[in-house]
Amino acid sequence: MTERSPLAPSAFPDLPPIPGVTVRVACARYKNWDRCDLTYVELAEGTAVAGVTTQSKCPSPEVEWCRDAIPLGSARALVVNAGNANAFTGHRGRAAVEAIAARVANHLACNPSDIFISSTGVIGVPLPIDKAEAGLESAFAAPACGWEDAALTIGTTDTYPKGAHVSAMVSGRRVELVGIVKGSGMIAPDMATMLGYVFTNAAVEPALLQQMLSAANRQTFSCITVDSDTSTSDTVLAFATGKAGNVPLASMDDAGADAFQAALTDLCRQLAHLVVRDGEGASKFIEITVEGAESDASAHRIALSIANSPLVKTAIAGEDANWGRVVMAVGKAGEPADRDRLSIRFGATQVATGGLAVEGYDEAPVAAHLKGQDIRIGVDLGLGNGRATVWTCDLTHGYISINADYRS
Amino acid sequence: MTERSPLAPSAFPDLPPIPGVTVRVACARYKNWDRCDLTYVELAEGTAVAGVTTQSKCPSPEVEWCRDAIPLGSARALVVNAGNANAFTGHRGRAAVEAIAARVANHLACNPSDIFISSTGVIGVPLPIDKAEAGLESAFAAPACGWEDAALTIGTTDTYPKGAHVSAMVSGRRVELVGIVKGSGMIAPDMATMLGYVFTNAAVEPALLQQMLSAANRQTFSCITVDSDTSTSDTVLAFATGKAGNVPLASMDDAGADAFQAALTDLCRQLAHLVVRDGEGASKFIEITVEGAESDASAHRIALSIANSPLVKTAIAGEDANWGRVVMAVGKAGEPADRDRLSIRFGATQVATGGLAVEGYDEAPVAAHLKGQDIRIGVDLGLGNGRATVWTCDLTHGYISINADYRS
Repeated sequence: MTERSPLAPSAFPDLPPIPGVTVRVACARYKNWDRCDLTYVELAEGTAVAGVTTQSKCPSPEVEWCRDAIPLGSARALVVNAGNANAFTGHRGRAAVEAIAARVANHLACNPSDIFISSTGVIGVPLPIDKAEAGLESAFAAPACGWEDAALTIGTTDTYPKGAHVSAMVSGRRVELVGIVKGSGMIAPDMATMLGYVFTNAAVEPALLQQMLSAANRQTFSCITVDSDTSTSDTVLAFATGKAGNVPLASMDDAGADAFQAALTDLCRQLAHLVVRDGEGASKFIEITVEGAESDASAHRIALSIANSPLVKTAIAGEDANWGRVVMAVGKAGEPADRDRLSIRFGATQVATGGLAVEGYDEAPVAAHLKGQDIRIGVDLGLGNGRATVWTCDLTHGYISINADYRS
Repeated sequence: MTERSPLAPSAFPDLPPIPGVTVRVACARYKNWDRCDLTYVELAEGTAVAGVTTQSKCPSPEVEWCRDAIPLGSARALVVNAGNANAFTGHRGRAAVEAIAARVANHLACNPSDIFISSTGVIGVPLPIDKAEAGLESAFAAPACGWEDAALTIGTTDTYPKGAHVSAMVSGRRVELVGIVKGSGMIAPDMATMLGYVFTNAAVEPALLQQMLSAANRQTFSCITVDSDTSTSDTVLAFATGKAGNVPLASMDDAGADAFQAALTDLCRQLAHLVVRDGEGASKFIEITVEGAESDASAHRIALSIANSPLVKTAIAGEDANWGRVVMAVGKAGEPADRDRLSIRFGATQVATGGLAVEGYDEAPVAAHLKGQDIRIGVDLGLGNGRATVWTCDLTHGYISINADYRS
């Protein structure tokens, strides 16, 4: 990993083991490097699964595999390859996915469709089957490891491992949810995580788990953007082993379902923020809230237009209270907006209202806010009740340095 | 002006005077700088006008003024202010526009609606009326100047003045078309020029001139992008003085109309390319052609998705043949695409076809192509006959440097 992001948390959190989940890592050497790059997670029989994947029209074969397997609802293992995305590799890429599924299914004596697979890294190079198979053999024989090792092993250009933990009370039982995630570039909505995995010991029926994960995703991973680029491999999977012994949740009307949904959304938001905080080259974490739009969807699109604007992102990098660029980004979103009703805040300071700079505008508190690491931009369109919040980071020399020579 | 773009032409071209057009410049000192920043162009009586403006929902009062005046079809003067965009300045910004129009109309004894006005620069600061009026007085008294002075005076972050010239034969008369343009950032389609002006001595009825300019714009200015950001002030105006003495063009069926349209489109393409070649921080000029799409419109959207992708643009900056990022950008466009029919070219070299890298792909000619300044990316979707070409530049440290401290 390269130099740790200045926005990284001080340490990887203490995450509890999840009963029914065993994590192992191995070195498949997908790239010429000296680190583990294959993560193998064994899941107890009866584990339910749900997932959301990239909206890309050119997804990887791993994404296609997961899309086919998710509706079947059951999982026994997860394999994550780092260093090679295996995307745009035609039938050879597909063959690698099938070989991995077959090998693990044979090891666990289960159906190949119970095996979930992700790969992340360079596009266009078929995943070498021999390396994958050798890596799996060594993972099968490896001792179980902790979450931090797994979070490190799924990473690529990440500068720190990312994990989070929440708990909830479901029918009198405390259930735990742990998540790990990777991603720092090629991050944009329509599944913005690159790769994220949630593990819980709660018992949840697959259909409900899917409904809950989709709902959580809409408010979290789909609200982050680093560079407006959408990966071919973005995947978030949730696994519920049922070992907590709660009465299985089957409907949102069940006792504890609301609490579980809230905990899952909270976990996904924490994980999504960790991705933004590792945005390539990021020096500022930016929260953009748009209110007063004609609808929530309209507010979301305007917020993303601001979050994806290179001129807004470079202004924040330069700690420049250039709110004119926010006006520009509102204007280009193509959504209903009325220049003369628009208000803009930086931090707690109103800088413009009713279509012009506030009378006697004092830039000092705004300049002070922009010197911090956590920046808040607020826009009120003054049209309706639509509201949305998205998160992004600034655009710096670091992004250029990382991406102008990533592959070589 | 800062250091000249490496993609700039070696010199400003020789542009002929256009009968009926007189150019003067003055120093209004809209910023604390030592350069001319007010351009005043006097147009002969009977000059026809056409225009296209930004699609931004938050346009400047200058854009609103021009939108109202263009349909009236006649022009006597153009005033361009550089250093202050006068956008998002409420009634005070509007008052400045009205004051300028009134002062010039009084000077020329014409209607205020015959006066066309643009302003470019920082957003959110009302244009100071006293400076504008003093600048106009000094422009009225200034000697006539050449096109290069005008091209320099309308510039802001431009690193070189931009102009071009074409001619056409219309009903046995040779007519001249001269254009000047400014822009290097906040450049994206839905009017991508920032500010561009075309002057011709041809006689063209306003309605036809509008039709021709709109058609030229769709194939030129609307096909360029530097940073996906759309200005609040983008404007292209065409002025036809009629001094060439040709039979006035009134319909596309008139003799010479095709020739004039072709010349106008050619001129606009040259001007559009000059803007991209001055893209903030640009070190490479990139032409992206998408063919085999379901429609031309679909091809255009996919081409722009590639052109606006920070990861594609940084890869080109790094001279990295990372065609996987092109696949990613095709996938995220949301347009019909089939991974397994997709082909990609860099320069003249096919790098991927039918969904995977070409057999025995040799990166050497691609690497050689990427070391040049003019980069060509070709995508064939293999679905239909839709086709589009767009132009952009790479994304470099220069862009960050320019935009992280533009205003201060």
